[in-house]
Amino acid sequence: MPSEIVRLDGHIIDSLTLSKVLDIILKEGGEYRVLRFQMGATRSDPSHAEIEISAPDNETLERILHATGQHGTERTAGEVRLVPAPKDGVLPEGFYATTNLETHVRLGNEWIPVQFIEMDCAIVVEHKEGTPIARCTPMHHVREGELVVVGDTGVRVTPVERREPDDVFSFMGSDVSTERPKERVVAAIVHAMKETRQEGKKILFVGGPAIIHTGAGHYLEAIIRAGWIDVLFAGNALAAHDIEGALFGTSLGVEIATGTAMPHGHENHLRAINAIRAYGSIRHAVEAGFLRSGIMHACITTNTPFVLAGSIRDDGPLPDVITDVVEAQDKMRQHVRGVGVAIMVATTLHSVATGNLLPASVRTLCVDSDPDTVIKLMDRGTHQAFGLVTDCEFFLKELAAQLPNVKVVK
Amino acid sequence: MPSEIVRLDGHIIDSLTLSKVLDIILKEGGEYRVLRFQMGATRSDPSHAEIEISAPDNETLERILHATGQHGTERTAGEVRLVPAPKDGVLPEGFYATTNLETHVRLGNEWIPVQFIEMDCAIVVEHKEGTPIARCTPMHHVREGELVVVGDTGVRVTPVERREPDDVFSFMGSDVSTERPKERVVAAIVHAMKETRQEGKKILFVGGPAIIHTGAGHYLEAIIRAGWIDVLFAGNALAAHDIEGALFGTSLGVEIATGTAMPHGHENHLRAINAIRAYGSIRHAVEAGFLRSGIMHACITTNTPFVLAGSIRDDGPLPDVITDVVEAQDKMRQHVRGVGVAIMVATTLHSVATGNLLPASVRTLCVDSDPDTVIKLMDRGTHQAFGLVTDCEFFLKELAAQLPNVKVVK
Amino acid sequence: MPSEIVRLDGHIIDSLTLSKVLDIILKEGGEYRVLRFQMGATRSDPSHAEIEISAPDNETLERILHATGQHGTERTAGEVRLVPAPKDGVLPEGFYATTNLETHVRLGNEWIPVQFIEMDCAIVVEHKEGTPIARCTPMHHVREGELVVVGDTGVRVTPVERREPDDVFSFMGSDVSTERPKERVVAAIVHAMKETRQEGKKILFVGGPAIIHTGAGHYLEAIIRAGWIDVLFAGNALAAHDIEGALFGTSLGVEIATGTAMPHGHENHLRAINAIRAYGSIRHAVEAGFLRSGIMHACITTNTPFVLAGSIRDDGPLPDVITDVVEAQDKMRQHVRGVGVAIMVATTLHSVATGNLLPASVRTLCVDSDPDTVIKLMDRGTHQAFGLVTDCEFFLKELAAQLPNVKVVK
Amino acid sequence: MPSEIVRLDGHIIDSLTLSKVLDIILKEGGEYRVLRFQMGATRSDPSHAEIEISAPDNETLERILHATGQHGTERTAGEVRLVPAPKDGVLPEGFYATTNLETHVRLGNEWIPVQFIEMDCAIVVEHKEGTPIARCTPMHHVREGELVVVGDTGVRVTPVERREPDDVFSFMGSDVSTERPKERVVAAIVHAMKETRQEGKKILFVGGPAIIHTGAGHYLEAIIRAGWIDVLFAGNALAAHDIEGALFGTSLGVEIATGTAMPHGHENHLRAINAIRAYGSIRHAVEAGFLRSGIMHACITTNTPFVLAGSIRDDGPLPDVITDVVEAQDKMRQHVRGVGVAIMVATTLHSVATGNLLPASVRTLCVDSDPDTVIKLMDRGTHQAFGLVTDCEFFLKELAAQLPNVKVVK
Repeated sequence: MPSEIVRLDGHIIDSLTLSKVLDIILKEGGEYRVLRFQMGATRSDPSHAEIEISAPDNETLERILHATGQHGTERTAGEVRLVPAPKDGVLPEGFYATTNLETHVRLGNEWIPVQFIEMDCAIVVEHKEGTPIARCTPMHHVREGELVVVGDTGVRVTPVERREPDDVFSFMGSDVSTERPKERVVAAIVHAMKETRQEGKKILFVGGPAIIHTGAGHYLEAIIRAGWIDVLFAGNALAAHDIEGALFGTSLGVEIATGTAMPHGHENHLRAINAIRAYGSIRHAVEAGFLRSGIMHACITTNTPFVLAGSIRDDGPLPDVITDVVEAQDKMRQHVRGVGVAIMVATTLHSVATGNLLPASVRTLCVDSDPDTVIKLMDRGTHQAFGLVTDCEFFLKELAAQLPNVKVVK
Repeated sequence: MPSEIVRLDGHIIDSLTLSKVLDIILKEGGEYRVLRFQMGATRSDPSHAEIEISAPDNETLERILHATGQHGTERTAGEVRLVPAPKDGVLPEGFYATTNLETHVRLGNEWIPVQFIEMDCAIVVEHKEGTPIARCTPMHHVREGELVVVGDTGVRVTPVERREPDDVFSFMGSDVSTERPKERVVAAIVHAMKETRQEGKKILFVGGPAIIHTGAGHYLEAIIRAGWIDVLFAGNALAAHDIEGALFGTSLGVEIATGTAMPHGHENHLRAINAIRAYGSIRHAVEAGFLRSGIMHACITTNTPFVLAGSIRDDGPLPDVITDVVEAQDKMRQHVRGVGVAIMVATTLHSVATGNLLPASVRTLCVDSDPDTVIKLMDRGTHQAFGLVTDCEFFLKELAAQLPNVKVVK
Repeated sequence: MPSEIVRLDGHIIDSLTLSKVLDIILKEGGEYRVLRFQMGATRSDPSHAEIEISAPDNETLERILHATGQHGTERTAGEVRLVPAPKDGVLPEGFYATTNLETHVRLGNEWIPVQFIEMDCAIVVEHKEGTPIARCTPMHHVREGELVVVGDTGVRVTPVERREPDDVFSFMGSDVSTERPKERVVAAIVHAMKETRQEGKKILFVGGPAIIHTGAGHYLEAIIRAGWIDVLFAGNALAAHDIEGALFGTSLGVEIATGTAMPHGHENHLRAINAIRAYGSIRHAVEAGFLRSGIMHACITTNTPFVLAGSIRDDGPLPDVITDVVEAQDKMRQHVRGVGVAIMVATTLHSVATGNLLPASVRTLCVDSDPDTVIKLMDRGTHQAFGLVTDCEFFLKELAAQLPNVKVVK
Repeated sequence: MPSEIVRLDGHIIDSLTLSKVLDIILKEGGEYRVLRFQMGATRSDPSHAEIEISAPDNETLERILHATGQHGTERTAGEVRLVPAPKDGVLPEGFYATTNLETHVRLGNEWIPVQFIEMDCAIVVEHKEGTPIARCTPMHHVREGELVVVGDTGVRVTPVERREPDDVFSFMGSDVSTERPKERVVAAIVHAMKETRQEGKKILFVGGPAIIHTGAGHYLEAIIRAGWIDVLFAGNALAAHDIEGALFGTSLGVEIATGTAMPHGHENHLRAINAIRAYGSIRHAVEAGFLRSGIMHACITTNTPFVLAGSIRDDGPLPDVITDVVEAQDKMRQHVRGVGVAIMVATTLHSVATGNLLPASVRTLCVDSDPDTVIKLMDRGTHQAFGLVTDCEFFLKELAAQLPNVKVVK
């Protein structure tokens, strides 16, 4: 019966890591023997374990080692295996697929960190000026002949440390229940935003058009004007309805101030899009004095970068929309670097797409009135996200009220 | 081919009544001929129609006449048929089952109004001091020998007039979409509450425990203290968690101020219930100075009546809870008389139960974070209800902010 | 007080059209006088109305005439006004924005039908060999100088005839309640599919990846193999997980046959995508004998066309995915021509996108476990859609069981 | 700094128990030192830990000991403290509130098991023929002077053993996602039902009226006739609509076979209730040959006991309905004894009420089309429940198909 010894270090009891690893071994048909176990006597002491994993055959053993490796077990031998990509945009068979956790690869006797980690990508290793570099690389970026990590020997991932019990995010758990005090959650996210700024990291806002439909656009506008957002991800709809609101006072044809459907209304977003198309870009429309308020106006005048990613639902679209989805993804990839907090409001599509690109260390809050969006985000691998099932209108009103220096103008 | 002529009067075009009636005739296998039709030339003029309904056989014709009668068609002949109830709590076969619309029965040549109309009941006719009286009577109230209306000749219902387009409630439609400006809806309900008071009618509040769990209890408390609620319908859970909050600062064991789960917490509501049981009633606990804040305290000190109806989910329960559901229903029946506005927040059970008892003329707002509650309420016959899919915390905070003289104390 | 007379013809009572028109007039601040009203005596006779609409000022009057025109009122004077497009992709100010209803424009004394009607587009008029042609044209397709309809004089829309009460679709109503017998709804859609085929029209299937995740892929595969689908709209995810299932027996890493998560699993869809990228296209992978089962295999071998539209959530993507969303929309536009029935299962994005492109006359069924998807589809203008809130696994199993000649292979 | 030593034994790593205990200590402001830790080398070996817990003050220490005790830590000293109940239905201050986990109390040197364990109750200790007995007792059952456990020294709870990875229930996790193969889940529940029968335990079915509305009643009827259900919990609505279906072929007035709303329909359930009231009970109506099919008929003819618990929503109600909710709860209490599997379908009220009464060892499946019901059930303490978000029609059809000897008659 083949076996191999792995090491597991750190806060492996209170992070549940050890439990998960043992569970995986049994589930996959293996057996374990704990050879050594030294438990940290107090909360600050790490624990150490050495576990012998055995399995009925080599294939099963490899599968177990691969699976437990995703929770931090380190194989005691070996460095990464590198195989050249067979074609542009095609990875070699057996390529290592990344998680969104911090990852290192062993080259020679050194552990090299993998740059720009993101889930569901490959790892390309190259040498720059004699120094080995490991890059997390989406499938479509790989070029023929680049060296790609294959298998998982020599790969080590570091599970996210469990947050301190008094961390602002930790009290929320991963619960998606609607029955909890929301003001307190907003206080927690405000705290996290301030901390992130102090750490020199960025705040990302991802938003859907319901922000405009519910009349909450002016809260987000005020938050952007106060400088609290470093980058905005949205689609054609949010921008078009925001501009519709600025030009006509409606969103999807419903008068924002009164909630009354206007008979001409459903055309207003088309007229708004058409007008911006005539100017060539949102920036041109702002600079010409044509567009004078709203979220997009706030982004332009505060130089807050935004990515408007296209979707097949789009009317028009606005000239600023990136209609090629791969290009849009790549643009989003650039902007997520350095993000410390991500706030996702009222959009399943953009939330899941952004979640795909974020490292697990980014504190992520997903706000939606439908619990399904939050559940989907987590199901798709963004386990670090905290879900808040509530109205985006309520959330943004509270956020604007609790953030310093935000002046809401109706 | 048997046929009969019916009359239909009023704003039958813009209330869609005529369309519905013709549709029913066809759907049920009948045919119609419009003998006379006089359309109101302007909005204030009523229209009049005389329609000959024919059907392949008498049974089908009766079925059609019955169905269209529920939308206001009046059979040109006949008075009500009365049959004595065979036993206590049992109605005669073929009894007329009420709708929640204003209803009259014809006795001799007179149309008598049916008192206390409510859906799914019978109509009992009796004579008080020589005057005939028609009472809407739930099945379990009927006594052996009482005269019950059977069939639907001699019964006339009056459809609810369509609301004026500028009525505060009308703009909301019966849409349950979450994507609309909520502040504006709250303004509409505030307006309706003021109007109702001016008309000398009562405001009913129906609430579920999520009001407490989300930390919104102090808003409702303040609204009650300001005198805006005339009667409160709730269950053991709302009262128990409210009292738990007043005594321990928690709800379901979660600290209301911070949202943090307390380890003792899940027991606090039991301790709260037990303490009130020791006092014998909520009023005694208030008068003894033991219970000093919260929604129930506000009800007691402002003499706002409440009905706490039992359910099989209840712990304890509190001594004030009416554990017999038929008795609880009867108590609710008494209190809905004179209600002009009903606000239902975060409870499917109590909302549907109350909806069953309300005449269709009561302006009803149902607030829930789950669209299903609103859909269920309407599916069960409370078609007049307007649904607002949002957080109860947000709704009550807005309501407290927009109602005059409400002072929220945290 | 300015006024104008309009005509309204057809089954305007039982289709509710007259009620809606009068309602709009009042809501918009106008007044009406019914000058002439001739009601159809029986169900087969059309009614005719002549209504004088008046308003406080010309602007309001125009707004009312525009709004009622969308329900079929015909202005008694005027032909369309045509203005050249100022630039490629930009429409002239005041352009007429289309509905998804059958539409005609008046040129000289003739009413010309608008080809390929679709909501939220413009109408371009051109002459081909001396014959005037009116084309429904999306904003991005218009070329500088093309003549575009402006305003709404000379435009007439024809409301959808109300379906016969015994039409298979009509019994469903537009209800989104989950509490109705689903087998019967499936019987209705099967009936509609057969009728559509007899009329020589196409059946469109729009599907999301939950079809694969829930293990229902083999039902759809069997339905396609039996020839019941004429065109498939989906995204990268459905195709990738279908191919993942065919190659590895998993979907999102969960073993389809057992529902058990496989440890390697989350990578399988990446390996599937990578493998197809190596072949260059799904067709090549099928022809090489590499891909041997599944939905995409069924499409290739039965020559059923498909459009895989890209989204920013996509991994890979598969080489067949159209990554430019405008290009993907245009491809979908071509394929919706001639569609009589559209079945949308478990995808909000693709359902709403397809709904945008469909004429109102297409019988559309939207199946989703989340009522929100159905509500959104209708809110976005696809009012003809019928919603079925249920499991896609259940729906497809029933559909496969009720459709003739479908052989499900597990 | 006060401290105390506790023991923790069993499969405390893979059941996550140790992690939870350490987490609680830190969260509550305490510190720990692991004095001894012996890890089970293989899966079958239990682990043992001795942990010294310290806290800033005695009150905090007690709170921590109390909280960790709920996860199985055993205080090394002391026996239970017993205080007499001050009044009928009132517990002494500081009473120990039960969990739904297996519990023992220490009297003298002996650990006595607590009978009929259920969450949110008290423990009464009495002596029967010299033998001490500990009974789990709901608040309203306690009689003045009975000895009630106060505090938590001398109380030990036993966490539920983690299920074997190949247990049919374990693969489901506590996930409420809709995106998983449902047929496989049904196979798991069928397996669990068979196992339960072999162990001599009972199968409980809890159902709501949507079972009838969706046309799935005949599946449940067939399952009962085949002898698969030992006790049925429901409300007036399920029974009334079932009888309505048996008598009139409708449910809530919708024809079950066709899904078409019948015009008389909404009255049918009233007529059904009235007819049974005339007979005095469902059994009498069956025995008289009046009621000849349906779920209730199946219960009567197979002598399957049922509890119909009243709610304030009820029409009528049926004579078999227990209108007092406390009495209904007590009846349910009697019937849950010996239950091994509980299946809850399409009812939040009855599911949560039943969940309150079940020991944590009962395998519980909750089926609902709304994820909220499942989430609520777990939030309320029934952590052992597995949620299946799907149609009850689909679920019951599958269940009937997979269970042996079930003959469905349409």
